[in-house]
Amino acid sequence: MDVKTLFNLSYGLYIIGSKDDEKNVGCVVNTVTQSTSKPITLTVCINRDNYTNACIKKTKMFAVSILSESTKESTFGVFGFSSSKDRDKFSEVAYGLTPGGMPYVKEGVTGYIQCRVINFVDNFTHTVFIAEVEEAENISQEPPMTYAYYHKVIKGKTPKNASSYVAETKEAGAAAYKCSICGYEYPGSREEFEKLSEEYQCPICRAAKNLFVSS
Amino acid sequence: MDVKTLFNLSYGLYIIGSKDDEKNVGCVVNTVTQSTSKPITLTVCINRDNYTNACIKKTKMFAVSILSESTKESTFGVFGFSSSKDRDKFSEVAYGLTPGGMPYVKEGVTGYIQCRVINFVDNFTHTVFIAEVEEAENISQEPPMTYAYYHKVIKGKTPKNASSYVAETKEAGAAAYKCSICGYEYPGSREEFEKLSEEYQCPICRAAKNLFVSS
Repeated sequence: MDVKTLFNLSYGLYIIGSKDDEKNVGCVVNTVTQSTSKPITLTVCINRDNYTNACIKKTKMFAVSILSESTKESTFGVFGFSSSKDRDKFSEVAYGLTPGGMPYVKEGVTGYIQCRVINFVDNFTHTVFIAEVEEAENISQEPPMTYAYYHKVIKGKTPKNASSYVAETKEAGAAAYKCSICGYEYPGSREEFEKLSEEYQCPICRAAKNLFVSS
Repeated sequence: MDVKTLFNLSYGLYIIGSKDDEKNVGCVVNTVTQSTSKPITLTVCINRDNYTNACIKKTKMFAVSILSESTKESTFGVFGFSSSKDRDKFSEVAYGLTPGGMPYVKEGVTGYIQCRVINFVDNFTHTVFIAEVEEAENISQEPPMTYAYYHKVIKGKTPKNASSYVAETKEAGAAAYKCSICGYEYPGSREEFEKLSEEYQCPICRAAKNLFVSS
């Protein structure tokens, strides 16, 4: 079996937003697909270890923010490589609330979709949620961000909790320093990295400089 | 609610192949997503009216052919706009069988994935199948066909049984003649269409010339 065959499945990238008792919560996924058109329902697959998964099982509601090609790298860092259990992620970006009160990202998106869960199936490490679309609004005309664009142009990494995660092997000629949290490769030389201020943070996940590891 | 918001969800295009008692069966879908990586499972959503859906519920097996940008228009016509109940679709294309005997398309694809159904959920008009990946092989290095590419470059239409079908309204300046089966718009003028031989067939779904309607 050649696992790389699966890399040719095509996806978009989305932030799923919901709520716990005190704050908004959210995470990045690539697994949103429309399932039916009458009524309009969609499916989304979220890791059972993600705090957002547990919150959706309680609220039965979520918003999908459809990321566009202009989504900032830092947005992936905030939503893709840390947990909403410990961090109020939406407070770090421009966000709005759907008519039903679900949080969505306002910048670097094409629009949002408000959904109500009508069924879900736990499938090993993930849950497949089936949800009815209640609201949907366009925000921009920017092209949607595809997973292929994220990997090729932004050179983004896949979080360990993703549906499509495959452990990456070290490549020859890799970066001198790499973020141990999200895998971001510092683009400069070893000397350039070492000269950086101790305040330097990973541009993707905001990990401190001392969390970078030398290759 | 602005339904067009949903048009910014990103997809690939796939042919799902399975078997009935006598022959191979198949249909086009845009709803294949990897769900988990340990074990590798995927989800796919197929209309309950599609003959292929009933066959998969019996065999519990199917193959996904991942379509590439070089997929011929006629392949969409064969697999997207007619039923396997009445037509041996795979006999009309170059095809192979996976190690488990499931049919896949050999040309205009990036590879195939053989899957065994482990669960399914009926969801209104469609079924969400959850399946474990048993085999996967690359066939070409061609870029995968995205749904956006299909609509923009090939100007392909969405079959009525698709998860994302929305009835299209007539646009000003539309084609002089349109296929009443699949919606293909003849690119030439009214006079050019009328001069075509009576043997002319829709290049997408092979409908006869007399099934074209004047706008």
